[in-house]
Amino acid sequence: MAWRAALRSKAVIPGLLSCSSHGRLCASPTFITQRNNSTSPKIKVDFDQTTGVAVMHMQSPPVNSLSLDFLTEFCISLEKLEMDKGCRGLIITSNQPKVFSAGLDILEMYGKSPEHCGEFWKVVQEMWLKLYGSNMVTIAAISGSSPAGGCLLSMTCDYRIMADNPRYTIGLNETQLGIVAPFWFKETMVNTVGHRNTEVALQLGLLYKPAEALKIGLVDQLVPEDQVFTVATQTMTKWLTIPEHARQITKSMMRNPTIDKLRTNREADIQNFVSFITKESIQKSLRMYMEMLKQRKA
Amino acid sequence: MAWRAALRSKAVIPGLLSCSSHGRLCASPTFITQRNNSTSPKIKVDFDQTTGVAVMHMQSPPVNSLSLDFLTEFCISLEKLEMDKGCRGLIITSNQPKVFSAGLDILEMYGKSPEHCGEFWKVVQEMWLKLYGSNMVTIAAISGSSPAGGCLLSMTCDYRIMADNPRYTIGLNETQLGIVAPFWFKETMVNTVGHRNTEVALQLGLLYKPAEALKIGLVDQLVPEDQVFTVATQTMTKWLTIPEHARQITKSMMRNPTIDKLRTNREADIQNFVSFITKESIQKSLRMYMEMLKQRKA
Amino acid sequence: MAWRAALRSKAVIPGLLSCSSHGRLCASPTFITQRNNSTSPKIKVDFDQTTGVAVMHMQSPPVNSLSLDFLTEFCISLEKLEMDKGCRGLIITSNQPKVFSAGLDILEMYGKSPEHCGEFWKVVQEMWLKLYGSNMVTIAAISGSSPAGGCLLSMTCDYRIMADNPRYTIGLNETQLGIVAPFWFKETMVNTVGHRNTEVALQLGLLYKPAEALKIGLVDQLVPEDQVFTVATQTMTKWLTIPEHARQITKSMMRNPTIDKLRTNREADIQNFVSFITKESIQKSLRMYMEMLKQRKA
Repeated sequence: MAWRAALRSKAVIPGLLSCSSHGRLCASPTFITQRNNSTSPKIKVDFDQTTGVAVMHMQSPPVNSLSLDFLTEFCISLEKLEMDKGCRGLIITSNQPKVFSAGLDILEMYGKSPEHCGEFWKVVQEMWLKLYGSNMVTIAAISGSSPAGGCLLSMTCDYRIMADNPRYTIGLNETQLGIVAPFWFKETMVNTVGHRNTEVALQLGLLYKPAEALKIGLVDQLVPEDQVFTVATQTMTKWLTIPEHARQITKSMMRNPTIDKLRTNREADIQNFVSFITKESIQKSLRMYMEMLKQRKA
Repeated sequence: MAWRAALRSKAVIPGLLSCSSHGRLCASPTFITQRNNSTSPKIKVDFDQTTGVAVMHMQSPPVNSLSLDFLTEFCISLEKLEMDKGCRGLIITSNQPKVFSAGLDILEMYGKSPEHCGEFWKVVQEMWLKLYGSNMVTIAAISGSSPAGGCLLSMTCDYRIMADNPRYTIGLNETQLGIVAPFWFKETMVNTVGHRNTEVALQLGLLYKPAEALKIGLVDQLVPEDQVFTVATQTMTKWLTIPEHARQITKSMMRNPTIDKLRTNREADIQNFVSFITKESIQKSLRMYMEMLKQRKA
Repeated sequence: MAWRAALRSKAVIPGLLSCSSHGRLCASPTFITQRNNSTSPKIKVDFDQTTGVAVMHMQSPPVNSLSLDFLTEFCISLEKLEMDKGCRGLIITSNQPKVFSAGLDILEMYGKSPEHCGEFWKVVQEMWLKLYGSNMVTIAAISGSSPAGGCLLSMTCDYRIMADNPRYTIGLNETQLGIVAPFWFKETMVNTVGHRNTEVALQLGLLYKPAEALKIGLVDQLVPEDQVFTVATQTMTKWLTIPEHARQITKSMMRNPTIDKLRTNREADIQNFVSFITKESIQKSLRMYMEMLKQRKA
């Protein structure tokens, strides 16, 4: 099985959650304030009315961390596209080199008030709810590594095309950091790669190389790095030939049972997350992890 | 994954539902009346008392469309065999060249009263309920293409042997016609090929070539075209060596949760189907589809 | 699919349940009494405090039958290790040649009172509940054949390493004896190899050769016979690098839904088992099976 290879390889080097900053500034409150006030969009949206296809280019340096701001912008963009009847397909990709998205931004969870953590978690939920249940055809053009929340974002799309570069990895590696993927991350993964693959992947926090990810079905297709976006566009064209209403109802039938589980448990899920993440032991893990990231960058 | 190949190949040419008639007569009410009065059996049943194995030869030209008459006859034959203690195995095959069954008969859904559509849907349910829960060992000897309802019929058996001819295809391609496979078609497919394969197969309405179908587990075995029935018979012999009572209880344990979902929701499922199929937009899709079929035959 | 090969091969020779004695003594009540009074431990437990890893060597000749005594000892040992905070990993292996465990001991079910059968079944449940929900990392070092209850024991661990010897087999072959695997055996198998593989495996009572077992995911890794234990130890070392608390919560999240189904239905499950196993027809099957075993040994 591919995850044995993943376990043997260096792919398991923790790289799971991300820190939305460069090197030493990582935990600087000043920086965070600046970041929050940033007016440059973290996502560039191109919508081609002739094809009905929108593209979200994630462009939040250095690694497209899923911060509160990023996710808020993501949800607003997604909702706009969803409400535009002319928009039938969405390709999500990254403008940052070597990375699709490095996942949830640790700075939103480290040293923050329970209120802040709760607000953050709510928008993580919102992103998933909107994207997993989108009426549009959604394709992830995974142009680089995609750990943790980046992997969730990918799995939440309808189809995943990944750059065939063995230096990139993808997986829900939260456990490696002492964090637990919540039940709806888990269910999304079970729906994608089955129960047993998920059991091992989540217990070990495995990051898979592209070939291994393809083998267990975590991605659908590997292509040379410079063709990821082109193939995503071609694939979209094929999907858009399918009668739309029937495809949408079918998608709902497959995904609504999972969506409903979170929708009816959002508050409890937020409480769970907040009480877990604000624990002293978990905060300590996050701090050590960020220090490790800093040292690797230095 | 096999369905990518399926999407690329010409296998996706719509061929999903079928029309129980030749060329131009397709939508003729006169023809339908004649058909209803037909006394020639649409299914030939051979039962060998020495082996305990019955064979249903589907012989309804041209493509074994699952019409109201066909399915009624199917259910009556199945119930007779089920009640015969000496009958322990059932092989379902086709006497028509190149096709196992082309699926539900569009003529039962096009231009018909809600009452007729409801009556038709009830017998589709009945076929599935009886066959998926049969105490007999059931083997589909898939001697040709098997789209839509033909694929459902195959998946409802215990084991599927298909002719290894790349011109044949199998799959639930309803979406291609703008129709939605109901939840119990979906669950039967999930039970056969898993959640992710089903999600893609149903969203795109994929028809798989035999090699692709084998790869995802939609069929269990490929054999040369002239050996399908022989191998089905040999396989049946092996299955019949298993202690019967234990096998039957085991089968129930695996399948009853799915069966119960329909059994407790039959009326609602009929209402859903009738209100969907009688929509003007869906009727228009059916008409266009039948016209396309006529042109292909012309 | 691997189970077709299994069906074709001689792997299906019934070998499913076991008889905890040598040849002719098999059904001797005297022998059973002696056995119950035996003071030599059926399981040797080695616990290395420096590594935090315990090893259970099953050493109940000839085939590590899961008798009432054996399972009671197993549960007590497991509970002790579970309560020892220093014990973080458990490897289960066999000291008997050619066999991991031959499964539930028929002598506990044949010619016994309903009370005895119920008491026996309760400890079978207990073994599964404790092991499937263990906080420790659990690895099965499958050094030989592992039919029926031996397969259940293996599947209940977190990871399965099997000796790559084609003369060994593994599977839930209860149906071959006329017995039905209970729902929680079934669910454990579905969680391991998926719905369709389980449906066929349980209906036919298939025993898989190592290569086939690997193919469907019934075991995770094959290694040369003399390296099973070494590789298990190395694998354990890797698993123990994972942050423990996060891994445990993740494991619970994956397994608790299945565990809860039995926990809330233990009494009904015992009643089901007792009323089934004490049926005259089933007792007759057991007797015939034991006689067949004796003849094979003679």
